[in-house]
Amino acid sequence: MKPVSFLLCLIFLVVGFRESVQGRPLSVSKPDPRNAAATARWLVAQNSWGVLNTISSELGGAPFGNVVSFSDGSPNEGRGIPYFYLTALDPTAKNALKDGRASLTVSEYPLGTCGKIDPENPTCAKLTLTGKLKIVEEKSDEAQYAKSALFTKHPEMKTWPKSHKFQFFKLEIENIFLIDWFGGPKPLTPEQYLHPKTNNPDSVQ
Amino acid sequence: MKPVSFLLCLIFLVVGFRESVQGRPLSVSKPDPRNAAATARWLVAQNSWGVLNTISSELGGAPFGNVVSFSDGSPNEGRGIPYFYLTALDPTAKNALKDGRASLTVSEYPLGTCGKIDPENPTCAKLTLTGKLKIVEEKSDEAQYAKSALFTKHPEMKTWPKSHKFQFFKLEIENIFLIDWFGGPKPLTPEQYLHPKTNNPDSVQ
Repeated sequence: MKPVSFLLCLIFLVVGFRESVQGRPLSVSKPDPRNAAATARWLVAQNSWGVLNTISSELGGAPFGNVVSFSDGSPNEGRGIPYFYLTALDPTAKNALKDGRASLTVSEYPLGTCGKIDPENPTCAKLTLTGKLKIVEEKSDEAQYAKSALFTKHPEMKTWPKSHKFQFFKLEIENIFLIDWFGGPKPLTPEQYLHPKTNNPDSVQ
Repeated sequence: MKPVSFLLCLIFLVVGFRESVQGRPLSVSKPDPRNAAATARWLVAQNSWGVLNTISSELGGAPFGNVVSFSDGSPNEGRGIPYFYLTALDPTAKNALKDGRASLTVSEYPLGTCGKIDPENPTCAKLTLTGKLKIVEEKSDEAQYAKSALFTKHPEMKTWPKSHKFQFFKLEIENIFLIDWFGGPKPLTPEQYLHPKTNNPDSVQ
């Protein structure tokens, strides 16, 4: 290969590498940080997993976080309510059946859009939804929705062992803690979060 | 560019792209799942952030998870104890100062080594360290260690505003919940976790 071809090759290689590591395509781009409701909904829609916290009955009431998969709906059609597929063989569901107090925490960091910003930097968005973790009533319309939401995003769940008695759970949201910029948590009510277009006074779009 | 040079270039490009997206280099590869202590230490050493859970004094005692950066030491020299750089302007430190009960949860998923396995699949490892979240005594040797551990892994922290009064915290580990394969949580004591080579009966290495 001639030196000029080698150089061109090197440029291709460097550009290709940079593009592949600097960010991944997102079906919906990150909202303006001033739009708290849209940012929170985006974090829930884009993340496929988070940490679900319950009060541990076995560990003296300690807050117990557990890695779980979740879904709020099909891609671009999420409703904001996180659904889970849990078994009481696992401490999280077992804890929730005794004490429903729970929170779900997700970060922008694993989405790849924080770049070189530290995961704890307030401009790398983080969200905690606090409320009650409850079983979705079997054979209800909501159970159908939860099943579709979860199995679309997590197709592997369809094959999980029936003997483990997985059930659909949801987080009934009572409080929202969102940090997506400097200046502390953004004020955001569950109502504004669940109906961001019509009720969000922070909307900038 | 001649066709052969173009072809070579294309091969370079495809190989470079594949290598950059298929997995990131890890200084230490994933331990055998049968080695519970090594797997837990690997998860703590490789992750730079996790969800730190406390009991929320403002939300009726609810378990409150928060995205935080942490470090257990310089790369390949970690001691297993997670250190944090927190401000009481944030609810997590504020909660811990009232009630030290806490847990730190990390997942293998963001490390990129779970492949197409679902984040809730037991073979995609997850770890929850439960214990007490405490301030590291100022001007102690441990404070120096915490500072070095954190600022090496999170250089941005050096520039965080002094007015926010960040302090070094650590999690004193009392209980370990590790899932890294089928068959439920692995038995693992804090002692086995902190001294994996000498005291871990699960060791397969």
